[in-house]
Amino acid sequence: MAVKEQDLVYPAKRLEDFIVSVLVGLGLPETDAQTCATRMTEADLRGVDTHGIFRLTQYCRRIRAGGMNLRPHVHAVRENGVTALVDGDHGMGHVVMTAATNLAIQKASENGLAWVGVFNSNHAGAAAVYATMPVAHDMIGIYMTVANVNLMPPWGGVELILGTNPISVAIPAGQEPPIALDMATTVSSFGKIKLAAQRGEAIPAGWMVDRKGQPLTDPRRSKEGILLPIGGYKGYGLNVVIGMLAGVLNGASFGRNVVDFDKDLETPCNGGHMIFAMRVDNFRSVDDFKRDMDRSIREIRNSKRMEGADRIWLPGEMEFHKIRERRKHGIPIAPAVVKQLRLLATEMDLPDRLD
Amino acid sequence: MAVKEQDLVYPAKRLEDFIVSVLVGLGLPETDAQTCATRMTEADLRGVDTHGIFRLTQYCRRIRAGGMNLRPHVHAVRENGVTALVDGDHGMGHVVMTAATNLAIQKASENGLAWVGVFNSNHAGAAAVYATMPVAHDMIGIYMTVANVNLMPPWGGVELILGTNPISVAIPAGQEPPIALDMATTVSSFGKIKLAAQRGEAIPAGWMVDRKGQPLTDPRRSKEGILLPIGGYKGYGLNVVIGMLAGVLNGASFGRNVVDFDKDLETPCNGGHMIFAMRVDNFRSVDDFKRDMDRSIREIRNSKRMEGADRIWLPGEMEFHKIRERRKHGIPIAPAVVKQLRLLATEMDLPDRLD
Repeated sequence: MAVKEQDLVYPAKRLEDFIVSVLVGLGLPETDAQTCATRMTEADLRGVDTHGIFRLTQYCRRIRAGGMNLRPHVHAVRENGVTALVDGDHGMGHVVMTAATNLAIQKASENGLAWVGVFNSNHAGAAAVYATMPVAHDMIGIYMTVANVNLMPPWGGVELILGTNPISVAIPAGQEPPIALDMATTVSSFGKIKLAAQRGEAIPAGWMVDRKGQPLTDPRRSKEGILLPIGGYKGYGLNVVIGMLAGVLNGASFGRNVVDFDKDLETPCNGGHMIFAMRVDNFRSVDDFKRDMDRSIREIRNSKRMEGADRIWLPGEMEFHKIRERRKHGIPIAPAVVKQLRLLATEMDLPDRLD
Repeated sequence: MAVKEQDLVYPAKRLEDFIVSVLVGLGLPETDAQTCATRMTEADLRGVDTHGIFRLTQYCRRIRAGGMNLRPHVHAVRENGVTALVDGDHGMGHVVMTAATNLAIQKASENGLAWVGVFNSNHAGAAAVYATMPVAHDMIGIYMTVANVNLMPPWGGVELILGTNPISVAIPAGQEPPIALDMATTVSSFGKIKLAAQRGEAIPAGWMVDRKGQPLTDPRRSKEGILLPIGGYKGYGLNVVIGMLAGVLNGASFGRNVVDFDKDLETPCNGGHMIFAMRVDNFRSVDDFKRDMDRSIREIRNSKRMEGADRIWLPGEMEFHKIRERRKHGIPIAPAVVKQLRLLATEMDLPDRLD
């Protein structure tokens, strides 16, 4: 994708350092600030522009309002060799989920696989950032989360009691990029709609309808609308089971008790996530598995294309290339986002104003 | 749903006995025939008319052609406390998957959770039949499978190298029916299209397109068409990861090496499935969890309905009611299916001709 003319481009390291300085300035310990910065910049590198530095201003509003614990005691309240329930103690979601994912990887490394559930957490950024962490250990990763704002009704309903509840699945490959599916169960994520609003762009029909079922294409009117699930009742069903597995199972929020993190900055979110890690060598030798993954990936990519299609992409492959491109050429940031970040830097009197 | 006038209605037990007599007649051991009959009738009771007795004639064609091992040695070739890789030895999928699911439940019972992968299997019927088995043990169940015929191209492609690859997730509740999502990652399953063809009904636009992207609504032309994934590239991505987790991870078929079980009756299918079982009390007490599940289910069901919607359904709730209704009033079978079954009974000289 060509860099949009109006976007400003920054090296990943510069954005990461900027995030660290902001979060340390607001009272986060240096290591936690670095963890957040790494996870947020990973989202931006992947091209998930809606879940990286774009969210920093909102996180800061919440931190300042007291809705986030800056010195959380993230710890397992229940635990065995292959599962854990982690209390995030209302810390930054990135800090909580990084700890939970490392715990899952450690347990899976020792015992084959692990499912770690999380409660008392907050927005943790891009789903694939966590699901892909086990891949470096020749493990499959699965991540699900309850979204932090309700924007979708149940199928047949009009009351907004469900979020975008995304799922990410990452699978190692050999020479090929690992598979990394990362999808909201709604046709669009709310982040994409926020970004469109900020960019002043319309959203496609089919992403949202208003309460009377009419298409809504002006993202500034998003609060009047309803996000649509993928595949109708199927996406609704998937949404509900993700909410139950990442929320109810952990005693975390799901449904009406989800705190709208945009509107309510003070009430602690009881955010829920789950992360699953599993060694591929439970089933096959890593080499055999990777060889067959490569074969399968190439078979799909090289299959006959539809007229007009330049390329067939595997899940996560675009993001894999985006990471390389953005590591080399920098990360483009929309002018409205840069403006917000500069305002933040000025308010906090930071040395770097992203000029 | 009202019983269609032309359908014939049979008690579940009668269909089950009929299936047993057919399969025993073809050489299956009594216990295996009973397992198949139970799983198939469970599908019919759930209202999954496409995955129960409807499939019997085709299973029989395959058995007679020698494409199925009637005395399989179903066994784990790799195993630890929380995972197993099961060789189905080309047995009936229902027999293989019942063994695999029981193994997963046993391991989860002992160690908290378990993931069992399967290869060398065959079509196993309705996904929810397996995912719901752990629920009786206060466990969550997840089932995925590689479909036995390829009907969908990759996103951007035209070559049919992907199947409907369904996923089922079942979650226990308290007073409420358990959650049981069961969905193909295509807008429609192929079974629904076969059933429509058999019933002489058209299929809705949006289920299939022809190779030029034009809507295809005559199910008799299904071989000329392409199934569409739910949510476009998202459903495609979900389809691929299911295929990799249920297929490639187990050394089972996925992609071009899938044997079309309708066309090729002799080549052994290296069918792949996975089943996951996990105790809810790894995370919370069973009582607390079920109480919150009931609360969540009621919150969704009782939320404000769209104009014209009679009721909001939870995933699996319709099927739960269908099971009760069909246990009481019998299972309606389409006349074309009854005709096939009677032909089978006559050929095999069975005492029961379903008259």
